[in-house]
Amino acid sequence: MSVFECSLVKTVDDSYEIEIGRALADTMVDELTSGVFGKYKKFAVITDSNVLELYAEDIAKKLQDKGAVAELFSFAAGEKSKTREVKAFIEDSMLACGFRRDCMVVAVGGGVVSDLAGFIAGTFGRGVPFVIYSTTLLSAADASIGGKTAVDTPLATNLIGLFNQPKKVYIDIDTWKTLSQRDISCGLAETVKHALIADESFFDYLEENIEKVFTLDDEVCEHIAHENCRVKYEVVMKDERESSLREILNLGHTVGRAVETVSDYKLLHGEAVAIGLVAASMLSQSLGFVSQEQTDRLRKLLDRAKLPSQIPQYIDKSELTRKLYTDKKVKDGKLRFVLQKGIGDVVYTDAVGAGYAMPISEEQIKAIIEKM
Amino acid sequence: MSVFECSLVKTVDDSYEIEIGRALADTMVDELTSGVFGKYKKFAVITDSNVLELYAEDIAKKLQDKGAVAELFSFAAGEKSKTREVKAFIEDSMLACGFRRDCMVVAVGGGVVSDLAGFIAGTFGRGVPFVIYSTTLLSAADASIGGKTAVDTPLATNLIGLFNQPKKVYIDIDTWKTLSQRDISCGLAETVKHALIADESFFDYLEENIEKVFTLDDEVCEHIAHENCRVKYEVVMKDERESSLREILNLGHTVGRAVETVSDYKLLHGEAVAIGLVAASMLSQSLGFVSQEQTDRLRKLLDRAKLPSQIPQYIDKSELTRKLYTDKKVKDGKLRFVLQKGIGDVVYTDAVGAGYAMPISEEQIKAIIEKM
Repeated sequence: MSVFECSLVKTVDDSYEIEIGRALADTMVDELTSGVFGKYKKFAVITDSNVLELYAEDIAKKLQDKGAVAELFSFAAGEKSKTREVKAFIEDSMLACGFRRDCMVVAVGGGVVSDLAGFIAGTFGRGVPFVIYSTTLLSAADASIGGKTAVDTPLATNLIGLFNQPKKVYIDIDTWKTLSQRDISCGLAETVKHALIADESFFDYLEENIEKVFTLDDEVCEHIAHENCRVKYEVVMKDERESSLREILNLGHTVGRAVETVSDYKLLHGEAVAIGLVAASMLSQSLGFVSQEQTDRLRKLLDRAKLPSQIPQYIDKSELTRKLYTDKKVKDGKLRFVLQKGIGDVVYTDAVGAGYAMPISEEQIKAIIEKM
Repeated sequence: MSVFECSLVKTVDDSYEIEIGRALADTMVDELTSGVFGKYKKFAVITDSNVLELYAEDIAKKLQDKGAVAELFSFAAGEKSKTREVKAFIEDSMLACGFRRDCMVVAVGGGVVSDLAGFIAGTFGRGVPFVIYSTTLLSAADASIGGKTAVDTPLATNLIGLFNQPKKVYIDIDTWKTLSQRDISCGLAETVKHALIADESFFDYLEENIEKVFTLDDEVCEHIAHENCRVKYEVVMKDERESSLREILNLGHTVGRAVETVSDYKLLHGEAVAIGLVAASMLSQSLGFVSQEQTDRLRKLLDRAKLPSQIPQYIDKSELTRKLYTDKKVKDGKLRFVLQKGIGDVVYTDAVGAGYAMPISEEQIKAIIEKM
C-alpha cells in the first residue's frame, strides 16, 4: 500500500465590478474588444426572444464593428427555457459556429438569461469567461451577485448548476424603459426584501422615493441598483456557498413560492414574494418581533410599488398550507421561516437546527394565512 | 454612473490523496461512513454495466451495511455513454431517489465512469463531493489526476465539462484481475508515455519489469500506479488549467487519435497511442532529438507490452494525414507535435506559437507515416 499526496492549494481571485449607469452597451463592447478580460476575439451573445431585437442584436453588431466574431444564440423567453435541453441546444449551436475554448460568453437579458448563460459558460470547454449585461431591475437586484447559475429539471428547480462568477456585470438603467410596470414592480419586491433584512435607512429611502423608479429617475434608479448589490453582497459574499446567513435572502419566499405555485403562475414571482413578505411580517408580529406600525409601513410601501399584500381570493388556502412543505428550508418535516426583527434586521436564534430560519408550527402560519 | 466592487479573493484547498493498494473497497466504505469527508449519509454509487456486478453492487451493499443510504446508478459501458443525455438520466434518477445537496457521489469504474460521475458531482446541487474507486490501469494512469471531467457531444469530444477534483482516489490493484490483456496493454501505453516525457529511470524500470504487470505482481503494479500519478501530477498540478506544459501529455496523441478514428475504433485508444508514440519518436529522430537506438528501445518495450508499433495495413494513409488536422493542437491551420528529447524529456522551443508543441510540415510527418 502506498499513498500519493496531490497537493492543490491555491488562491483564487474571482473579484469583479458591477457598473451601474446608462448607455453601457458601448462601454461593454469597448472593454470586451480591448482586452480588459483577456485577448478574446470570439463572443457568444446569449439572449432570449424578448431581448434579442431590443438589445442583443445591437450588441453583436457593435462587437462585429470592432472586428470581433460575435454570434447570437437566443431562446424562447421565460423560466420554462431554463432547461438542460436548451443548454445543450445552445452549446451545439456554439460548437457548430466554430466556438471552442477561446471564446467569451456575453449574457444579455434578465435572470433567466444570466442563469443559463452563466451555466453554459461554466461548462463550455470546461469553463470560458462570461459577462452579464443586465436588462431588468429584478436581475439587477438578484442575479448580479452570488454566482448562482442553474437549470430546472422536471423534478427540481435550480438544482443542476454551478457557482460561477462573471468577469463583470453591466446594469444599464436605460434598458429598464422597455420593462412593463409589472416587471418593475417585481424587481421592487426583491428590493424591499433587501431593505427589510438589512437596512432600515434603505427602507426609509424607498418610502421617500419609490414612485421615482417608475419614471426611471437617474439618481434613484442608480441608488437602488447599488444598494441591492451592497446588501446582497454583504449577505452572500462572506460565504459563497449556501450558508445559514444566506437563508435570510429567503425572507418572504416560504409563503411566496407556495402562493406563486398555487396561483398556477398567474402571480409573477415578485408579486408572490410581496405577499410572502407581508405574511412573514405578520408572523414576526405575532411572535413579538415586529410592531403593527411596521407591518403597516410594509403594506403601504408595497402598495405604492404596485404590489399585492393580500392573498388573491381564488387561492385555496388549504392547498397553500400543504404547499409550504415543499419549501427548501423544511427540515425533518418541520416548517422553518426567516423572521423580521423590526425593519432592517432578522431574527437569529441559537436553537438547534434554527439559525436564521425558525421552526414554525403549521397552526401558527395557518392563523396568519387565514387573516390574509 | 457608479461602480460596485465585488471583492472575492479566497484560498481554495483541493488537495487529496490517492491510495494505491489492494482490497480498498472496505477502506473506502469505512472512510465514507466515518465522516472523513464530512457528515454524509447518502451515497450515489455511479458505475457502468461492466463494473456494476463486479464491484459496485458490493460497495453499495457495504455502505448500506454501515447504515448509510446507497443507491446504484449504472449506464451502458463504453465511451458512447459519455453524453449529456446519460448525465441527465442519472441526475433525474438521483433526484427521483430523493438525493439533494446532502449526498456524495462515489464513482466506481474506469475513465468513462470518473469523467461522467465527476461532471455529475460538479453540477448536482451546484456541486457535491465525490470520490473515485478506480478499477482499470488506464484510469489509474490517466483519470486520477488533473480534475478533468466531461461528456462528448455530436460535434466535440470532451468539450462540455469542468475541472472538478475528487476528495480521494482509491486505486485498487485487485480489480485489475478482471481486466483483459488488451485493457492492461492500453493502460501500459499511457504508462510508457509518462516515462518517455518525464523520467528515463521509470522507462528503465518498465524495461526491467513490464511483463510482471500482466501477472499482477504486487510491487510492480503499485510502483507503476504511483509513478504514473507522480509524473502526471508534476506536469499538470503546477497549473490546473490547460497550459502549455500540459501539452506534453499529448505526446503520441497526434497520430494516435487520428489512427484511432481512421481505424473506426478497431484500435483501442491505448493501441493507437502506442503507434502514435512510435511516430513521434521517429519524427523526433528525423529532427535529431532522438537516436535510432532510443526508437528501437521504445518499439521493443511496446512489443513486450503487447502493443502495436506499426500502422495496420488496412489504414488509408492519405486519410490518416488529413485526419491529423482535426488535432486540438493545430494552430492557424498548422500541425504541431510534441517531440521527445531522448528518453525522459521533451523538446521545448521559444519560437512563437510553439512552446512544447512544435510546428511540423505535412511533408515531414507524411515521410514518417509512409515508413510505418
